[in-house]
Amino acid sequence: MQWLALALTPGLGPGKARRLVEFFGSVQSLFAASLTELEAAGLRAVSAQSLGTGRSMELAHDEVAKAAAAGAYVVAYDDPAYPTELKQLYDPPLVLFVRGNVEVLAQPGIALVGTRHPTPYGVGMAERLACDLAARGLVIFSGLARGVDTAGHRGALSAKGKTVAVFGTGVEIIYPRENAKLVDQMLAMGGAVISEFPMGTFAAPQNFPIRNRIISGMSIGVLVIEAAEYSGTRITARCALEQNRDVFAVPGNVTNKNSWGPNTLIKQGAKLVATWEDIWEELPPQVRLTLMPEGANESQTGQTASLFQEAELSPHEKKIFALLKADESTHIDEIVEGLEPDLSSSDIFAALFRAGTKRQGEAVAGEEFCKMLLGAADSCELIAFRGQNAGFSKSEGLGESPPSCA
Amino acid sequence: MQWLALALTPGLGPGKARRLVEFFGSVQSLFAASLTELEAAGLRAVSAQSLGTGRSMELAHDEVAKAAAAGAYVVAYDDPAYPTELKQLYDPPLVLFVRGNVEVLAQPGIALVGTRHPTPYGVGMAERLACDLAARGLVIFSGLARGVDTAGHRGALSAKGKTVAVFGTGVEIIYPRENAKLVDQMLAMGGAVISEFPMGTFAAPQNFPIRNRIISGMSIGVLVIEAAEYSGTRITARCALEQNRDVFAVPGNVTNKNSWGPNTLIKQGAKLVATWEDIWEELPPQVRLTLMPEGANESQTGQTASLFQEAELSPHEKKIFALLKADESTHIDEIVEGLEPDLSSSDIFAALFRAGTKRQGEAVAGEEFCKMLLGAADSCELIAFRGQNAGFSKSEGLGESPPSCA
Repeated sequence: MQWLALALTPGLGPGKARRLVEFFGSVQSLFAASLTELEAAGLRAVSAQSLGTGRSMELAHDEVAKAAAAGAYVVAYDDPAYPTELKQLYDPPLVLFVRGNVEVLAQPGIALVGTRHPTPYGVGMAERLACDLAARGLVIFSGLARGVDTAGHRGALSAKGKTVAVFGTGVEIIYPRENAKLVDQMLAMGGAVISEFPMGTFAAPQNFPIRNRIISGMSIGVLVIEAAEYSGTRITARCALEQNRDVFAVPGNVTNKNSWGPNTLIKQGAKLVATWEDIWEELPPQVRLTLMPEGANESQTGQTASLFQEAELSPHEKKIFALLKADESTHIDEIVEGLEPDLSSSDIFAALFRAGTKRQGEAVAGEEFCKMLLGAADSCELIAFRGQNAGFSKSEGLGESPPSCA
Repeated sequence: MQWLALALTPGLGPGKARRLVEFFGSVQSLFAASLTELEAAGLRAVSAQSLGTGRSMELAHDEVAKAAAAGAYVVAYDDPAYPTELKQLYDPPLVLFVRGNVEVLAQPGIALVGTRHPTPYGVGMAERLACDLAARGLVIFSGLARGVDTAGHRGALSAKGKTVAVFGTGVEIIYPRENAKLVDQMLAMGGAVISEFPMGTFAAPQNFPIRNRIISGMSIGVLVIEAAEYSGTRITARCALEQNRDVFAVPGNVTNKNSWGPNTLIKQGAKLVATWEDIWEELPPQVRLTLMPEGANESQTGQTASLFQEAELSPHEKKIFALLKADESTHIDEIVEGLEPDLSSSDIFAALFRAGTKRQGEAVAGEEFCKMLLGAADSCELIAFRGQNAGFSKSEGLGESPPSCA
């Protein structure tokens, strides 16, 4: 409530508000301060008045009532449900208004962004990749806009996955209106709708770029599907780079204007994405472990690792394998860190040794492991290469996707 | 003639033949050697016999007669017309059979390769890029195969440019037959047809991969347009990497099987190509200088450098500008090396200083220069960015291409 009151105080931005809280030691002490103390802290008169007279708290109470009426929660900066990823931003919002499943905000996800005027290729790729990623437990973040955003949300739903829309309007104001039903489906499927803007905020062009930084900020990485030369997507991609997020892009025919954005991003170092595996392999190891711990998801581990004969692997080896990438060597420290305390480092070394031995006998699993043992040695590059081929064939045959993603 | 005799000697490969010449000090001394000396040098009996008895020279005379009858020259390894680029290969052929303009072999060129079953997008991009590059004086090397090869040769011809087909057959045997007229046009336009295989060699599958190493070996870089998963293009791209050639690739929709090759190459570090400028900017500075020295070609310099107001530049500045890339900083040493002895390094520094001063006044040319002075400073990145945009718009509007390339 106090964070919300700060957010609603006129003349006080989120950065200044956070510095103020630091200055007073806590948000409680800030609200216990007198008008004179507030002005002495360098607050503008209008802000100090609003805080000191209790006007800000009144606004906050009204806002909470409005939110409750619309079925929304207010998640403040110090709330455990506040997304940790967002706190890494330069200027995280003080509060988020949330409709739906608050817990989903803490789960790892990928932002999917692109043009409002996609080609059928763009729509198809957005739906397909969102579906494939959501099926593996990643949350799909997007902005509910027409075009690629909508296709991304839909794709996640077709995998019965979770998807979150970040609004540039008040959380109860659906824009564009035609997506009202889509929002209902998202909420029903355990997703959410969030906004940093107060209840009742209508669509205004200046709010959408502000919103975009939340979309990228909540995500591990940003996937750009189609974007023309001058576009908001470009801004989101720049945000992502500044926020130290991975940028992924789906290439396209250079004769398609909408491919300009992704192709240019790839030139500039974004990772080229042809299938969901291209994103999966870049996820931090701890995220991959969270998404496929054991049991029910284990069959998916086999799917990720193209040529790998799962039946031959021990449970230890399976866990290690889940951390490997198909076309890049993985440092042993990363594996040890990812698996502690489940596996001791001696367990890990023993498994690697067995794998190295199997390699002599042409066991493919062993050859995959050898990437860690030998680095980029020739024989291993060959396997990485084969792995990639296999990955692509599967994708062509759609063998790996849930049937709903095809 | 003697090199040709070596090439036609049974049981003697090009590598061994070159080592033999080194052993004897010259090809003349080798042919002056006795049968005993030849056998002592480690030659197989059949090879020594053929050389010692003069049989090899007879074969060479016959071969030259056949070549002459078909209007072909024989260019030996020590001939000044032998392509210097080829000599860098691990196993350059001892002789090349050439029909057409022998001089074209010494000119800088780009190999254009891809599938025999392209989509209309692949055909269009091959014709377009070959046309744009040939219009700027680059030779287009390819293999005359159906599909992308044919489109590449055609594109070069539509710019009235030079293009060279490397055959996997004898130089007088056109494969596929339907390209006979295309070959006539290539020869008429100052291009050439070359082969390392003796006259009369018919199409045989094992010869085409051997031929591919010549296509990439003759070129500064290899441009891959469309290639499916298992393809000869892949072999050519691998050759190019081993030969230390730049690999360029045109991205495409991931739903197009033929985009698998280029997209995978881009993942692996090949340079993404949307327009001819993407290749141009990677050419070695001395090649760019050769292709646009001064005078007639100078207007093209302006085309390359998107936002740059040519009228404001002195002749010195123009020369320097020709060496700059649009989206990457160029080290001053590279500029000095590229322009010596035409310009002294003090001329160059003076021009750069003037450019740096102009920059204060927002002269775009100056801002481009600042990339060298300031490296990747922010203000310069902005320009590089603008330059790229501009490059793409031009390409969309086709404003830059010769009308025949559209």
